[in-house]
Amino acid sequence: MRAITVQPGRAGSVQVEELPDPVAGTDELLVRGVALGVCGTDKEIGAAEYGWAPPGRDRLVLGHESLGRVVQAPPGSGFAEGELVAGVVRRPDPVPCGACAHGEFDMCRNGRYRERGIKELDGFGSELWTVETDYAVRVDPELGHLGVLLEPASVLAKAWEQIERIGGRSWFEPRTVLVTGAGPIGLLAALMGVQRALEVHVLDRVTDGPKPALVRGLGATYHHGDVSGVIAETHPDVVIEATGVSALVVAAMAGTAHYGITCLTGVSTGGRPFEVDTGGLNRSIVLENDVVVGSVNANQRHYRAAADALAAADPGWLAAMITRRVPLERAVEAFGDTGDEVKVVIDLE
Amino acid sequence: MRAITVQPGRAGSVQVEELPDPVAGTDELLVRGVALGVCGTDKEIGAAEYGWAPPGRDRLVLGHESLGRVVQAPPGSGFAEGELVAGVVRRPDPVPCGACAHGEFDMCRNGRYRERGIKELDGFGSELWTVETDYAVRVDPELGHLGVLLEPASVLAKAWEQIERIGGRSWFEPRTVLVTGAGPIGLLAALMGVQRALEVHVLDRVTDGPKPALVRGLGATYHHGDVSGVIAETHPDVVIEATGVSALVVAAMAGTAHYGITCLTGVSTGGRPFEVDTGGLNRSIVLENDVVVGSVNANQRHYRAAADALAAADPGWLAAMITRRVPLERAVEAFGDTGDEVKVVIDLE
Repeated sequence: MRAITVQPGRAGSVQVEELPDPVAGTDELLVRGVALGVCGTDKEIGAAEYGWAPPGRDRLVLGHESLGRVVQAPPGSGFAEGELVAGVVRRPDPVPCGACAHGEFDMCRNGRYRERGIKELDGFGSELWTVETDYAVRVDPELGHLGVLLEPASVLAKAWEQIERIGGRSWFEPRTVLVTGAGPIGLLAALMGVQRALEVHVLDRVTDGPKPALVRGLGATYHHGDVSGVIAETHPDVVIEATGVSALVVAAMAGTAHYGITCLTGVSTGGRPFEVDTGGLNRSIVLENDVVVGSVNANQRHYRAAADALAAADPGWLAAMITRRVPLERAVEAFGDTGDEVKVVIDLE
Repeated sequence: MRAITVQPGRAGSVQVEELPDPVAGTDELLVRGVALGVCGTDKEIGAAEYGWAPPGRDRLVLGHESLGRVVQAPPGSGFAEGELVAGVVRRPDPVPCGACAHGEFDMCRNGRYRERGIKELDGFGSELWTVETDYAVRVDPELGHLGVLLEPASVLAKAWEQIERIGGRSWFEPRTVLVTGAGPIGLLAALMGVQRALEVHVLDRVTDGPKPALVRGLGATYHHGDVSGVIAETHPDVVIEATGVSALVVAAMAGTAHYGITCLTGVSTGGRPFEVDTGGLNRSIVLENDVVVGSVNANQRHYRAAADALAAADPGWLAAMITRRVPLERAVEAFGDTGDEVKVVIDLE
């Protein structure tokens, strides 16, 4: 079979190569890859900024935003040949820590978790792949190719769960949410805000390309320009930050209404000092009983919530999020600069 | 009766003056003041940096850390003459907002709440005061004068409730807590950490005075010096920040273990930019699923939890926290610079 592989730590090493077909274990599905989404983490791995090969190997099969069709399922597994599935990305650490031992491996405490296509386990960027039945999630057949959005949606399903559980520590009836960034993460955050009947605002830099129409297509309000003006205008109960840009992160932390919750989802790089009025930021967080929560990854519960959210969404809108499809033989293009694209997907069949 | 009053907005205006005795309403207790604690907020009001007089008046009766003895109680109220009580500080906003309407006025959304001795309502710094039975909290008679610590303890009971409810969003079994600041708030935070059987570390600047011994008296570890060294050494699951000092706030936010919770309780002043590696801070909060939560004020539930915590504490240790007692006639001294004192209390009888 053909697979997209990379040598972590070596920039520009992404390639499509021939590998032996995988063999499913007794508790595993054998799956024919349908599509693979590409995100910032994949590009970071391609640029040698992140990623770990399996122990004893140089190269890793890339890809964690999966969609495939079951070829072979263990009897009694509940899965049937031909069903669409996606694979959960993270696996518990082997120790395991308390969180992993309780199935909450997205909250792993010791950092020794492994991740398909990212950390020590081969990903889903291949014509055939296997997945343990416990880590396979069924995709609504009506979604078809759009099921490739399940993994990024799971990240937002977790983020919204965090917001709601944290909000529930006292009286909580949010009305307004501001999302910073109109990439795939920001758009899926906005979708789930609309599904919760909230007033949704999305801020991004651009004035053209597909993003403004995608935001408006949800019934949300698109903003560009200065974040402080948008915050003053919208007075958000919830901010979901999806850029990792320092000025937006700080504005998001400080800019919520009383009892506000800022959920940080954008992974930034450190090392560049930025001037912050920390006294004012601390004062506003304390006196308003505000929360800042970071959210990353997702466990099975979040994948199931994401599957429900995608099934309830307008398929035309979801399709418009996928602004470019690349065939497997040209997969390397998807890991380079893709400009104003929203979601780039590699077709595996 | 004599009362401690202040003209908010006018520095140096704290004085002891003669005022008419208050008259209890049908749903109120008449209380003889026993003692009054003084905190940073009181000093801010004395320095004209905070505080609001009741509408139509220039002066406010100061004091919100109350302890008194019931002189007269409405029949059927459940309170009896001679009982020790403290008064809850905050009252719901008149609108009310959703939080206030649900009894969660410590989470008031519109900022129109009122506070005894701070914002638009007379405080408890007088020989006689009244309090609505719904806002009076019974103090264990065995605590005696130490019941004056109930209000600051309520602030920490709320902070710990926030930490536990937020931690409960996934698997949570914290082991180590770091408290920054060994003033009354930090010490009460540490007390409640020890009561939860956690490994407690407290960081402060001083090497002498009463603080190191108070921390050690709890069975906690006292640290002074560089915060980053202490964080690296203790790897805290929970940080309770009780100084408001920018360098400590930022270190606390960034310094927790995975799934860490930083609870900010120190009220700082804004306006002084501070260099922060916001990219690194954001990355660590996201990738570790960390939370930063601000906590201020308390509702009746927290006062009751605080009463339980004080009743379970060593009375000798609590007594050692009160490092100075001032008679009412010299009350003004308590609002000035009190140096290395931990808690200064004014005797009202």
